[in-house]
Amino acid sequence: MEYPSKLIAQAVEEIAKLPGIGKKTALRLALHVLKQESDEVKNLSQSLVNLRENTQYCRHCHTIADADTCGICTSPKRDASVVCVVEDTRDVMAIENTGQYTGLYHVLGGVIMPIHGIGPGQLNIESLITRVNHAKPAIEEIILALPGTMEGDTTAFYITKKLEGLPLKVTSIARGVPVGSELEYTDEITLGRSIMNRQ
Amino acid sequence: MEYPSKLIAQAVEEIAKLPGIGKKTALRLALHVLKQESDEVKNLSQSLVNLRENTQYCRHCHTIADADTCGICTSPKRDASVVCVVEDTRDVMAIENTGQYTGLYHVLGGVIMPIHGIGPGQLNIESLITRVNHAKPAIEEIILALPGTMEGDTTAFYITKKLEGLPLKVTSIARGVPVGSELEYTDEITLGRSIMNRQ
Repeated sequence: MEYPSKLIAQAVEEIAKLPGIGKKTALRLALHVLKQESDEVKNLSQSLVNLRENTQYCRHCHTIADADTCGICTSPKRDASVVCVVEDTRDVMAIENTGQYTGLYHVLGGVIMPIHGIGPGQLNIESLITRVNHAKPAIEEIILALPGTMEGDTTAFYITKKLEGLPLKVTSIARGVPVGSELEYTDEITLGRSIMNRQ
Repeated sequence: MEYPSKLIAQAVEEIAKLPGIGKKTALRLALHVLKQESDEVKNLSQSLVNLRENTQYCRHCHTIADADTCGICTSPKRDASVVCVVEDTRDVMAIENTGQYTGLYHVLGGVIMPIHGIGPGQLNIESLITRVNHAKPAIEEIILALPGTMEGDTTAFYITKKLEGLPLKVTSIARGVPVGSELEYTDEITLGRSIMNRQ
């Protein structure tokens, strides 16, 4: 598409780099930005730079935090003997929203994806092992809450191997038919597993 | 939703102000920004501010331009006796993409929407009248290419009234059944009009 000005073309190109946003949506957003007050655009722009430059990660669990330790790790109400291993901070938020979990977290920052050049070394796996070895009080259970994909399973397998022989329990979140969904619409692998793992 | 850090919460709030982007998408975009190189985030942020601060509008047709006159208005190849009136720059781009139109444009910057406080005074209607009165060579035809909504029709009616008595032709783009679409799926108003205006 031909853009009427270089500034529009540049903005569209940059906006369209965001995931799930194509050129048409980017153009719509760019034209929206043009109609906004100058201050509002500066707020948006500044909030993005601030986010990238000033966000800290908890030094224990690697979740996004405002300080070098997150609210969950410092809370006396949480059960420090259970650690739930997740892919990213969004998963922490999702689990927190359930209100069902009172333990701590460990954010890997991704899963093992050799195709994209992400090996165990790029993830926070070594720090999980260190954490398990030095935690006081001791960690008694590691819950693997990784995505149900091949990459998630590979990562879970790798971590399980790494933790072998240590005096703790390694569990995985249950896979099965989602609450409220019909059996006939559930894919056969999920359905098969949920029959095998009946309670 | 509870956000793990104030910076994330701020960024999500700002991103979610964009049209068509809810809190969930905003969070996904914010977490994507966190993973990007610092320079890339600065490029995006800067391109938005640049767009807002440095974009100019053509002083003849009010389309977005890199200078105070746009490429279409200055092109000797365009037919200056025909002016197509559109809502915004996106419409100029859409019509240019057809390759069918060789005249000039006039961008209103919106349509009359009393509910949103947009009256004729907020739009580039007065400058259209001035342009019609002073253009050399004279403008012989004004094509109204406004949206087929009530607001678009109101605006078209208002402009037609304003141009009454001037020595030029006022036309509207044809409304009808889109090329390639089935009659049975066309709404009855469009179908009715396309029968009335048969050629």
